[in-house]
Amino acid sequence: MTSRSLDTWLDTPHNRDSLHEVQRFVRTTQLERGSRPTRLLVEAKTPTGLSAMSVAVESGQEMSVADFLSLTNTDAFIVLRGDQILHEQYFGGNRPKTRHIVMSVSKSFCGMLAGILVEDGTLDLDATVTKYIPGLAGGSFGTATVRQLLDMTAAPDFDMSYLNPDAEVQAGDRAAGWRPGQPGDADGTRAFLQSLQRSGIHGAAFQYCSATTDVLAWVLERAADVPYAELLETRIWQHVGAEADAQITVDASGTPYACAGMSMRLRDLARFGRLLLGHGRLDGTRVIPRSWIDTTASGGSFDTSDTSNRRAGTYKNQWWVPDGKSGAMFAAGIFGQYLWIDPTTDIVIAKFSSESDPLGHSAEHSHALRSIAGSPALSELAPAQHQGGTI
Amino acid sequence: MTSRSLDTWLDTPHNRDSLHEVQRFVRTTQLERGSRPTRLLVEAKTPTGLSAMSVAVESGQEMSVADFLSLTNTDAFIVLRGDQILHEQYFGGNRPKTRHIVMSVSKSFCGMLAGILVEDGTLDLDATVTKYIPGLAGGSFGTATVRQLLDMTAAPDFDMSYLNPDAEVQAGDRAAGWRPGQPGDADGTRAFLQSLQRSGIHGAAFQYCSATTDVLAWVLERAADVPYAELLETRIWQHVGAEADAQITVDASGTPYACAGMSMRLRDLARFGRLLLGHGRLDGTRVIPRSWIDTTASGGSFDTSDTSNRRAGTYKNQWWVPDGKSGAMFAAGIFGQYLWIDPTTDIVIAKFSSESDPLGHSAEHSHALRSIAGSPALSELAPAQHQGGTI
Repeated sequence: MTSRSLDTWLDTPHNRDSLHEVQRFVRTTQLERGSRPTRLLVEAKTPTGLSAMSVAVESGQEMSVADFLSLTNTDAFIVLRGDQILHEQYFGGNRPKTRHIVMSVSKSFCGMLAGILVEDGTLDLDATVTKYIPGLAGGSFGTATVRQLLDMTAAPDFDMSYLNPDAEVQAGDRAAGWRPGQPGDADGTRAFLQSLQRSGIHGAAFQYCSATTDVLAWVLERAADVPYAELLETRIWQHVGAEADAQITVDASGTPYACAGMSMRLRDLARFGRLLLGHGRLDGTRVIPRSWIDTTASGGSFDTSDTSNRRAGTYKNQWWVPDGKSGAMFAAGIFGQYLWIDPTTDIVIAKFSSESDPLGHSAEHSHALRSIAGSPALSELAPAQHQGGTI
Repeated sequence: MTSRSLDTWLDTPHNRDSLHEVQRFVRTTQLERGSRPTRLLVEAKTPTGLSAMSVAVESGQEMSVADFLSLTNTDAFIVLRGDQILHEQYFGGNRPKTRHIVMSVSKSFCGMLAGILVEDGTLDLDATVTKYIPGLAGGSFGTATVRQLLDMTAAPDFDMSYLNPDAEVQAGDRAAGWRPGQPGDADGTRAFLQSLQRSGIHGAAFQYCSATTDVLAWVLERAADVPYAELLETRIWQHVGAEADAQITVDASGTPYACAGMSMRLRDLARFGRLLLGHGRLDGTRVIPRSWIDTTASGGSFDTSDTSNRRAGTYKNQWWVPDGKSGAMFAAGIFGQYLWIDPTTDIVIAKFSSESDPLGHSAEHSHALRSIAGSPALSELAPAQHQGGTI
C-alpha cells in the first residue's frame, strides 16, 4: 500500500494500479451523468473479435491486435461501429465499471466546450487572453488569442519533459496536487499560470503545452461566468449518454486540472466519440455545434509529426488530426490514453493504458488505431454476431 | 473558492458547502454499489408531509419538524416507514444525488462488519488487539479486547475535543489527510495509532474515541485478510440495495478513515437502516446476522448520558442505544449526521446537517428523532397518499 503514494502513483509499475483510481491520490470533483445512458449493443459474452486481426504499428511492421494491446500495456480497449461493440477487453485491475484517468484527452473535452461557447456568442476566438483574464497581462499568455490557445500555437517558455523534476510541466503537476509540493511552489493551478512570465512569438509554431489548456479553461470559465467543472458537467457530460459520473482532479482551492484531470469509464469515453460522429447531436438534441466539429476535423496549420509527441498530422481545437480530409480525429494522453473517431467507417476506438514511458509508443498507437479504424475487415463483422444484448 | 480549503472545510460556514463534496478536499476511494437498488415508494412531488408535526426537542419543549430542521442546519432529511417515503427534503446545495459525509455514522458500519466476521468465524471478540496486530503491543490499545473496542470501553489516553488543535482527535484528522499537516505529525492513520502509547484500565468505563474504531477496522482487516474498504464494499455496501456508490476518505497510503470518512446519498443511508430493520436480510439474502443486530439493540453496560456526547442511553457494537428494550438504535456523527431506526414503528430516519458546533444539538437531535420515530401521527399517514411512483 505504502509503495503507491503521491510521489509514485504516476510511475511504472505503480501506475498500472493507480490510473484507474486517481481519487485515492488526488482531490476530485464529480461530473454527474445525465438521466439516460445511451444503449450500446453487446454480445452476451465479452466480444474480443478483433484479437487476431493484423494491424500496422509502424511503416512495414504488422502485429495482431492482441499483441498490440500487450505491447502497449493496455488497461482497457473498446471498438464501436455505430452503437455496436465489435471488441471490448479489460486488463489488470480494470473492469467496465472502473474510471480511468484520460490525461490529455481531457484537453479535447475543453476544445469542444470552446465550440459550444462560441455558438452561444459568449466566446470570441480573436480576443486575447487579457480580455477575459486581466490578471494575466504581462505573463506568458496575456497577448495570445483564444484561437492560438485552442490550436496550441501560443508560445510560453515551458518545458514539457514529463519526467524532468525541473521542467515546468512538473511544477504544474505539483501546483495541481498531483505530486508532493516543494518549497517555492505556486499555490494552486491559477497561481502557477500567473507565475509563468516569458514567451516567444504567439502563432508562429505548434507548441504542445499543458498550461495552454489550463489558461483556455480559465478563459472559458470567465467567458461563461460558470466554474469550469460545472461547464464540463452541464454542457457536455450530462449530454453524452454516459452510464456513470466522470471525475476531474482539483487543486487545494478547487480549481480543476483541465489539461489532464478527467477520469471516466471506457464505454463513456466511447460514447463521447459517438456523440462527435453523430455531428454533435444526441437523441435529437444539439450538444456540440456541427460546424465546430467539422472545422476541428479539417485540421490545423502546422505539421506535428516532428515534435516530441511524435504524432503525425496537425492539431486543431485541442484535437489531433491525422489527415484533415477524412474527418478522422483523435484525442491522446500520456501513458497511452486514446479516443479515435473515423466518420468514413463510423468507428470509435477508446483505449486506456498504463505505459512506463509517458509518450511510449505514440507513433505505434497512431498507426495501429488508424489501421483498425480504417480496416476493411471490420465491415465484414456482421452486426448479427453481436446481438446478445444492450448495456 | 479559495476560502474553502483543507484548513477551513470543516468549519462553519464553509462546512455547509463542503460536507457534501468531501472528495474535493480529501482523497477518497469508491465503494461500489451492487446491481439492484431497492425500490422506495415516493410521491410524484416531494413529500414533506411531516413539516407541521410537533416534536419534543428537550423535556417540555416542542417545535414543528420544519423548525427543528431549520434549528439544526439540516442539509437533508428523510423518514421512511417500510419502503414508503413519508418525508424527504434537501437544503442548501444538497439534492438526492449528492453524497454527504456521515462522519461517525461510519463507525456503525464498522460495528456491523464485525458481526459479519464473527459469524464467519474469523473474528474472536475475546481476543486482544495484539492477536491481530502484534505491532500495537505496548501501545494504548494492545491489551484491549475486540469487544472493548466495539463497545467503546477501551481506555486510550486521548482527547476528543474536536476544536482543540492540541487534542489527539485533531492529530488523528491530520494523519488521515483531513487537515493540513504539522511538523512531527504521524505519517498516516496507522502510524498515528501506533504512536498512541498511554491508556487507563480497559473495560472500566465508556470512553467514546475515534481511534478506537480505527483500531477495530484494522483488526477486522487483519482477521479477514481483506483491506477494510474492500470489506465495507463487498460485505455490506453491495448488499444494502444502494442506488449509488459510496466513498470513504483515505490517507496518503490508502488507509481508509474508518471512524468518520464515509460519504453516501441520503436515501442509501436510509436503505442501510431498512436492511437492519429487516433483520439483516435483503431480498432473501443474509447480509448481517440477525443475532448481532439484536444484541446491538439490547445495548451496553454504561450510561452514556453523562458524557460530552450528551446522548442518553448506552453504546453497543458502535451504535447508540436509547433504551435497550424497544429495539431502537441510532448512529450519530458530528455536525448533525444521524441514522435512527425503530422496529416498533418500522420507521427509519436519516439526516445530514452542517451544524456550526460539532456536537451541536446532540440532545435535541436524540429527543426529536425519537419523538418522530415513535409518533402515533405517523401511522395516520396512509400509504395511499404516497403512491406517486418508485425510485
